[in-house]
Amino acid sequence: MNNRRVYFISDRTGITSESLGESLLNQFENVHFKKRTYPFIDTVEKAETLLAHIQEEVEEDKDWDRPLIFSSIVDRDVRKMINDYPAFHVDFYNTFITSLEEELQTEARRLTGVTHGLRSEESYDKRMEAVNFTLNHDDGITDQGLQNADVILVGVSRSGKTPTCLYLALQYGLRAANYPLTPEDLSSDILPRMLQNHQHKLFGLTIDSERLHRIREERRPDSHYASLANCQKETARAEEMFHRYQIPFLSSTHKSVEELATSILVACKLKRRF
Amino acid sequence: MNNRRVYFISDRTGITSESLGESLLNQFENVHFKKRTYPFIDTVEKAETLLAHIQEEVEEDKDWDRPLIFSSIVDRDVRKMINDYPAFHVDFYNTFITSLEEELQTEARRLTGVTHGLRSEESYDKRMEAVNFTLNHDDGITDQGLQNADVILVGVSRSGKTPTCLYLALQYGLRAANYPLTPEDLSSDILPRMLQNHQHKLFGLTIDSERLHRIREERRPDSHYASLANCQKETARAEEMFHRYQIPFLSSTHKSVEELATSILVACKLKRRF
Repeated sequence: MNNRRVYFISDRTGITSESLGESLLNQFENVHFKKRTYPFIDTVEKAETLLAHIQEEVEEDKDWDRPLIFSSIVDRDVRKMINDYPAFHVDFYNTFITSLEEELQTEARRLTGVTHGLRSEESYDKRMEAVNFTLNHDDGITDQGLQNADVILVGVSRSGKTPTCLYLALQYGLRAANYPLTPEDLSSDILPRMLQNHQHKLFGLTIDSERLHRIREERRPDSHYASLANCQKETARAEEMFHRYQIPFLSSTHKSVEELATSILVACKLKRRF
Repeated sequence: MNNRRVYFISDRTGITSESLGESLLNQFENVHFKKRTYPFIDTVEKAETLLAHIQEEVEEDKDWDRPLIFSSIVDRDVRKMINDYPAFHVDFYNTFITSLEEELQTEARRLTGVTHGLRSEESYDKRMEAVNFTLNHDDGITDQGLQNADVILVGVSRSGKTPTCLYLALQYGLRAANYPLTPEDLSSDILPRMLQNHQHKLFGLTIDSERLHRIREERRPDSHYASLANCQKETARAEEMFHRYQIPFLSSTHKSVEELATSILVACKLKRRF
């Protein structure tokens, strides 16, 4: 077994470096990675302290191969310091910035912090507005709320609606409402009254019944609500409804919140608000 | 003025490619970029349709320079097709995967969808648990809730606590509760009773009073609550409390939700739960 320490180092949050680094490392099956993320490394002093710390960790595993460093650092001095450390380097900033400068025939500003910074008050406000909207319309539906929603997620209890709505709000600034299908809704053959005027905005979520059973058992053990039979009935009924009313839908069983949110954005041709 | 069309193309959500691409482009001031993101391009057919669409768009702006394509595509055939299109290419996958294969002395699986996929049921459950916890402890505080929280954000109304808590839950699986400082809390010199047993878990958020005034005006125009004088008084009082009780704190004024969440993770030495 190949063992490697992995360091994601960024002058900002490190969320992007970590995410791209992880997606590259996920392509390798037979290596065991021990990963750490270090955000906000934006001064030579911080880099010095970090590298001393890394050196200590590396010395703990003397028989391991050299560590991998995935970094995104704008400042030349900090970057040079990191890149001089004996490791295998993947430099997300420098690898591309020079060729981009050539292509665009203009010099990069080389300013730290233009990435995730508050793009503008306006876009921040849109994001907050969307989050507040989503929180106010989570399981507590009003006609007014549905009217103002960009999209309405429909599904049985615990099918993944709430986190998907929150992600749509945080990542894309969308006003995502959700409508939980109750046992009453599911025993009827017609679309719930409140949804009838908003059919074009509906998106369904379903989930594998065994998975749903496990999730609900955590919440209300040994209840009718959580029983496998009830979960099977509810999901089958919900899917019938989606088919009958031609509501596009997805299963949340094998998808992350990111994938669900992005799939809904594409399927509903939604325009992000910032 | 230099005008460029920019395409972020991914076989998954595109969130990472877009984010890294944006951070590179933000380094260039004098270029106007017209950006579009295309997720889930994972078959040759989808790539063909997309490239035909891109070609149409490019022909609309005949006097513009060639487009930029930022891509992350694992499948060789799909990638080759994209990379053969006449554009300036930044290939986030292929640029690094070969050298990683050499370094790790093992072949990449070259499987699409190992990035943002549900890492495991367990980590999905942790994320959901954190989101549910955060929703249940947003402004509605119980002793039990504070007991189980990983971190408790404290601040005046509209200082950015809720979105930051949600991001901590979604991105890091952390149970983030929040405690809004009421005018009563602020008129006292002692820490609110409910927080007294949890001082080690507190993190403060403050905000520029003029910014707070604008945010609150949107919500309750011309109220005492939203008045600049009241916003100044509340934020000054809150900051005094943070100093008096040595509660670490940050201003949300110029920071994104991502930056706030990551800063809190680091400052409180929190361990992500997945």
